[in-house]
Amino acid sequence: MELQLPRGMRDFPPEEKILRDEVIATLKKIFELYGFNPLETPIVERWEILSAKYAGGTELLKETFKLKDQGGRELGLRYELTVSLARFIGLNPTIKRPFKRYQIGTVYRDGPIKKGRYREFYQCDVDTVGTSSMLADAECLNLTCDLFRLLGFDYEIQINNRKLLQDVLAQSEISIKTAGDVLTAIDKLAKIGPAEVRRELEEKGLSEESLSKLLTLLEVRGDNRQRLSQMEARLSKSEGLEELRQVFEYLDEPERVLFLPSLARGQAYYTGTIFEVYAKDSEITGSFAAGGRWDEMIGNFLETSERYPAVGISFGLEPIIEEMKARREKSTQSLPKTVTQVYVVPFKNLLVEGRRICQELRRAGIKTDMELSGRGISDGLKYANAYGIPFVVIVGPDEVAQGKVKLRDMRSGEEKLLTSEETVHQIAKRSSL
Amino acid sequence: MELQLPRGMRDFPPEEKILRDEVIATLKKIFELYGFNPLETPIVERWEILSAKYAGGTELLKETFKLKDQGGRELGLRYELTVSLARFIGLNPTIKRPFKRYQIGTVYRDGPIKKGRYREFYQCDVDTVGTSSMLADAECLNLTCDLFRLLGFDYEIQINNRKLLQDVLAQSEISIKTAGDVLTAIDKLAKIGPAEVRRELEEKGLSEESLSKLLTLLEVRGDNRQRLSQMEARLSKSEGLEELRQVFEYLDEPERVLFLPSLARGQAYYTGTIFEVYAKDSEITGSFAAGGRWDEMIGNFLETSERYPAVGISFGLEPIIEEMKARREKSTQSLPKTVTQVYVVPFKNLLVEGRRICQELRRAGIKTDMELSGRGISDGLKYANAYGIPFVVIVGPDEVAQGKVKLRDMRSGEEKLLTSEETVHQIAKRSSL
Repeated sequence: MELQLPRGMRDFPPEEKILRDEVIATLKKIFELYGFNPLETPIVERWEILSAKYAGGTELLKETFKLKDQGGRELGLRYELTVSLARFIGLNPTIKRPFKRYQIGTVYRDGPIKKGRYREFYQCDVDTVGTSSMLADAECLNLTCDLFRLLGFDYEIQINNRKLLQDVLAQSEISIKTAGDVLTAIDKLAKIGPAEVRRELEEKGLSEESLSKLLTLLEVRGDNRQRLSQMEARLSKSEGLEELRQVFEYLDEPERVLFLPSLARGQAYYTGTIFEVYAKDSEITGSFAAGGRWDEMIGNFLETSERYPAVGISFGLEPIIEEMKARREKSTQSLPKTVTQVYVVPFKNLLVEGRRICQELRRAGIKTDMELSGRGISDGLKYANAYGIPFVVIVGPDEVAQGKVKLRDMRSGEEKLLTSEETVHQIAKRSSL
Repeated sequence: MELQLPRGMRDFPPEEKILRDEVIATLKKIFELYGFNPLETPIVERWEILSAKYAGGTELLKETFKLKDQGGRELGLRYELTVSLARFIGLNPTIKRPFKRYQIGTVYRDGPIKKGRYREFYQCDVDTVGTSSMLADAECLNLTCDLFRLLGFDYEIQINNRKLLQDVLAQSEISIKTAGDVLTAIDKLAKIGPAEVRRELEEKGLSEESLSKLLTLLEVRGDNRQRLSQMEARLSKSEGLEELRQVFEYLDEPERVLFLPSLARGQAYYTGTIFEVYAKDSEITGSFAAGGRWDEMIGNFLETSERYPAVGISFGLEPIIEEMKARREKSTQSLPKTVTQVYVVPFKNLLVEGRRICQELRRAGIKTDMELSGRGISDGLKYANAYGIPFVVIVGPDEVAQGKVKLRDMRSGEEKLLTSEETVHQIAKRSSL
């Protein structure tokens, strides 16, 4: 038997999982502070749903794990969470609007493996569906600012609008046929520069005139106010630009957000506002979160086909965790291997007394493990040390004779003779430091 | 397009998911109090692992979702969490023993659908691997008692031992060949009675002599002490019985545990202690949790093939949730549809002031949503009512003129004119009631 994990998938041993749970708890806290409620959908969806119009599109479908149930129904593992939300609204069309949900869960992509890319990974999404208000778009970004402040990350949000991009393309006299290629190319503008984008688009056969118009239109300078004004002066009338202005009006920290007219984003389903979040001073160059408005997908899942606007942002758990780990490494802080606060080691014939103190500690809310195998005190200390358990309680005959136990602080090596109440108090006090 | 979920799978809208999250938090709390640490393994495993010796066995494999990755590797969706733990230890053979982990996650069975049976459902497992100490077995049951007390369920734990069962079969002169059939039949003894078990085993061709011996051996009466003594008197020497005695010695609430010598449990991999947990006074007749000792599986995943003892218990999230829902229904308590504590509704031209109070509430840790669409106050109240949000903050011109807001308690209809600090205080106070 080959002892292996599926390619591109990972185990998270306690030292990883504890950190992941902490970050997920932080995300959940912020999501709920902003009025989002939890929704859970299955990891498996019907193939028909995953391949629906306005869903992930051909490229994503190529990377989608396919399976069948015993009844021969075609199914797939979800590649993201948005399509499932649209399908949920389709099945619950009378839900009171706007409906605000968050979902934190694994998604699956059967694609090439490289550093930081996996075949099973977490997405953490918030979406507001059923309103066109730009306040909903702005809330996604205000939430992001609060979250990144809490995580202690320095960051920048880039923002644009798909309608504005369409206006830019139209004014550059670029045909719908080549629009996809053009968007893909200009999305890289900030990274590779105008010369490289020009070369790429010349190869695609774009006319010199269109190209010049396009690159001139996309070139903005200064702060957001200046950038918006420059764009306004160039376009006759743009709904996308008006939407952007509104979003900026509703931002708590507009200085964190940069209007970048070349930002295009991959997903085919975005219809208005789009944004991406990057960490500053990080070795991770990819985005930490991204999202935007997707007003067309849900209607496709409704019998009435009515327009059902939606906007959301998706946080990648993986880059957030990578960044947290990198920071801890820099500060030479190691990842805790255990949540256990204390390890009870009784002398061999004092199991009853050991069990008693163990249960007293647990009743007091202290995470307590106990030596199970009747090994000696020094083995017990080694065990606590191996897992980094901060305290050991030794239950020996001398201690028991005095109605006490010995509490050892594993970091300092300090030992104290204490009653069980004092032990609880000591551990609780030092754990909250 | 057929708008459907995969057969046997479910969405959990907020009113379900909030309750599920609460119960999962309770499980997590108890698991950690008992010294278990979180582990996460992928939902997908290699087919070779899922079909390994001592793993789930043929019947489970028939119900396992199969898939392939782009490299043609055979994979499956996990049908339970135990095999993945064994595989994890196989990949981390030097991990310090005993290793105590918990895992809460979805598992998949492509089997027949009936009430309470799904194709995607949660298992919540704790296991201690790397020790033969019966204290580890007892801890599973002590933990169960604490958990069910916290959930407020009345319950009974049934316990037996596979080694003892083997002794019983040997003494009844039952061949290894028919042992499987016999175990399946006697497992139902408490439910269907000895006459029915006798009929079933006669059909399987068991001799009258063996049958009589078997049924006599299994008949015990009285409390656990009496039952253990009766069994001891009948068997010459039984390691299984000795193990059972030890487990009872380490139990905090032995009166909650019943020694039932006919208990056999399905899974092929159990080797010693086995137990099942049932709720009393519940309409759910199936088990809420089950587990036991599985000393053989892990060795199969080790190069050294050394014996690697293990014991654990698996809680079913689904029956726990069903029981909680039934209780709330009886007490006419409805499930909360939202975690949101307050809904801010500003007059149309007071969006800036509305946003300000909204962010003040959030900074104070209050879960706050806000009217996004510029609808009127009465629509805002209807919205809060539809989702059961307990408080509404109305931001109108009169209130703003006084530097205050109006806080409406949606249950009582009471309205108060308050400063933002007073609002925070009021909501925090009433939410903790």
